[in-house]
Order: sequence, then C-alpha cells, then structure tokens
Amino acid sequence: MNTINKQSGVAFKLKKGQKLRVIDPQGEQVSDMVLFNANDILEKISSGKTLDFEENILITAGNFLWSNRGNKMMEILEDTNGRNDFLLAPCSPETFKIMYNIDDYHPSCFENLHTSLAPFGIKSDDIPTAFNIFMNVQFDQNGRLKVLPPLSKAGDYLLFEAQMDLIIALTACSAEDSNGGTFKPIHYEILESNL
Amino acid sequence: MNTINKQSGVAFKLKKGQKLRVIDPQGEQVSDMVLFNANDILEKISSGKTLDFEENILITAGNFLWSNRGNKMMEILEDTNGRNDFLLAPCSPETFKIMYNIDDYHPSCFENLHTSLAPFGIKSDDIPTAFNIFMNVQFDQNGRLKVLPPLSKAGDYLLFEAQMDLIIALTACSAEDSNGGTFKPIHYEILESNL
Repeated sequence: MNTINKQSGVAFKLKKGQKLRVIDPQGEQVSDMVLFNANDILEKISSGKTLDFEENILITAGNFLWSNRGNKMMEILEDTNGRNDFLLAPCSPETFKIMYNIDDYHPSCFENLHTSLAPFGIKSDDIPTAFNIFMNVQFDQNGRLKVLPPLSKAGDYLLFEAQMDLIIALTACSAEDSNGGTFKPIHYEILESNL
Repeated sequence: MNTINKQSGVAFKLKKGQKLRVIDPQGEQVSDMVLFNANDILEKISSGKTLDFEENILITAGNFLWSNRGNKMMEILEDTNGRNDFLLAPCSPETFKIMYNIDDYHPSCFENLHTSLAPFGIKSDDIPTAFNIFMNVQFDQNGRLKVLPPLSKAGDYLLFEAQMDLIIALTACSAEDSNGGTFKPIHYEILESNL
C-alpha cells in the first residue's frame, strides 16, 4: 500500500491489464487523476470523449475512461462510493486566486500533477481536465454547479483496470471546499494482472 | 458575412477587442468552436476551467470562455438562443464508429477543426473539447446525457468579444443527431473593436 501525503501528488506507470485501487483512508478526501499513453504522451485522458461515449456526466463502475484519440484507457471495475467528478479542472494557483481570493502561495492539484509528471517529459500545459475521484460536484437542471464535501467514507475505493500501458498521476487534493475543509492522505495499490 | 459550408470548417485570427458573431442562418445547426492564444498555441480553451470558474454547465451570455492557463479568452456578450454545450468532444471518426456504427468515411468536426488549424501549426492531438454553439445536450439528475436537435431558430446568433489575440476554428457540425438530421451552413462575421 502506498500513501500520497496530504496536498501532494505522485506519478507512476501501470501496464495494460494491471489494476489500480485508489482508497480514501479517512473519508471526505478527493484525489485528482490524469492518464497518458505510456508509449505516446500526446494521447491522454479526455473528459469530453468520456462523457460523450459513456453518455453520462457521472462516471462510475462499468464506465471506461477514454482518450483524446477515442481509445479506452481504463475501465472502472468497482466504486464503493459512486460519486466522482469529471467536469472541473484540477485546482490551480488561478483557482485559489479567482475563486478563493488567495493571492499567496497555495498548494494545488495542478502543481502536484505537473511536477510529478515532469520526469516523464509532461509539461504543465499538457495537463488535461482530471478525473476527480470522490469529488462531489452537484448540478441542477439549470446547470448550476456546487462543490460539496465528498460523500466518501473511510475505506471507500475505486478499482481501475488499465486498457493500455499508462503513465498515471494522482493527488491528494489541496482545495478546502472540495475536501470538507481538511486535508487528508490518499492510499493506492497496484494489483497484478490476472492474465 | 462569411459562410461555412455544411459539414466543413474554417480557422482565422481575431484580435483582442474584436467581436465575432456566429449565426445559425437556417436553424437547428451546431457550430463547434475551439480557441488558441495567437501568441502561444499551447494556451487554449478549457472546458474544465470554464465550467469551474463560471460555476455552471450551461455557458451563455455573461459568461467567459477560459483557457487551460486560467485566463479569459472570450466573453459572450449576446446569445439569442441560450442553449450551448461544453461537455462533449467534437464529433470525430471514432464518434461515428463507436456511437453510430459507421465504419466508412464520414466528415467530422474533429477533422474539420484540425485540418483548418494545420496552417497555424496546430495538430490533431492539440484539439481540446470544443465549445459547441447551439448544441442541445440535455442532462438529468442522474447525469444521463441526451443529444437533441438544437433549439436554435433561423437567425439566432452568439456575439463574442476576444479577451486576447486568438486563433479560432469554427465548424458547421457533421453529426446527424446533433443537427436534427440535416446539415446546414453556419455564418459568421467579425466586428471591429469599439476601442
């Protein structure tokens, strides 16, 4: 079992067929995830393709995460919580400036994603909209969005299976409103292929 | 007044302060739009940033279109129809294969966007989720998405003002379901700055 410390991030490779479990050990903690094709980093996770091909805003068990080239990157095999977000960009320095009026330095998923991915040759401008695991973004019929505390309880997890060789970055999210006001770690483990 | 023929696309520059009017001349016709910073094409329109900062899925008059770097790219000054989509990826060869079971060649917004943008050094992998003008994507509280015919009537338009120097690509959308089953042209005009 691996730990992502609060307000930080990691990046690693996952081979096709391997599984990834992302766990919220204490509850109410978001983890932003981005995916790149390990053999060609110009192919990456796409919110637009995923919502289009899965015909749903709410992505959970049974859904696939799709790339900008229209290929399956991951399948979600299990989701014990069931509420994730794929609408909103990772929190960034601009998020804290524009949405929270914080001008001083503030840790962010955006920084944690691109600094973790730098050793793989991935730059800050390459970071797409992340799949925001456990993030609870509510919407009404007028489209209004509200970020509420995650519904995840201690031990809730998602289990993913890689559909291609991947570079993955994962965070323990740094935004106050997204995490019920406190920052907690995220756990993850890599499970070998059954093949 | 400029015409985008049915199932085709164009790309052009718009200077900060100039205005762009995109018109549906016959009604029920979608136009996909992507934006790049004319001075640095690594900065481009971001659905995730726009939905985040505007706190709404339904982007219309009074909203801004934001970049991946968290800068304002355009303001929507007027929108006589009021229903646009910023969830779904541009229709692409994969869309027609996966969603429509069409294996033969089919024109697509994706192809029309990246071929129009090629002279500016923009490649197919650089195409982000487009702002889909007049596209009528309905969602329910369970997140289920349905593509319905546009609500736009003949002459409906959106008026945008550039917040930075832009490269813009626009299409007359090629997907049957998005356009009420028939393909029509899109009109656009560039209006000079009042400054």
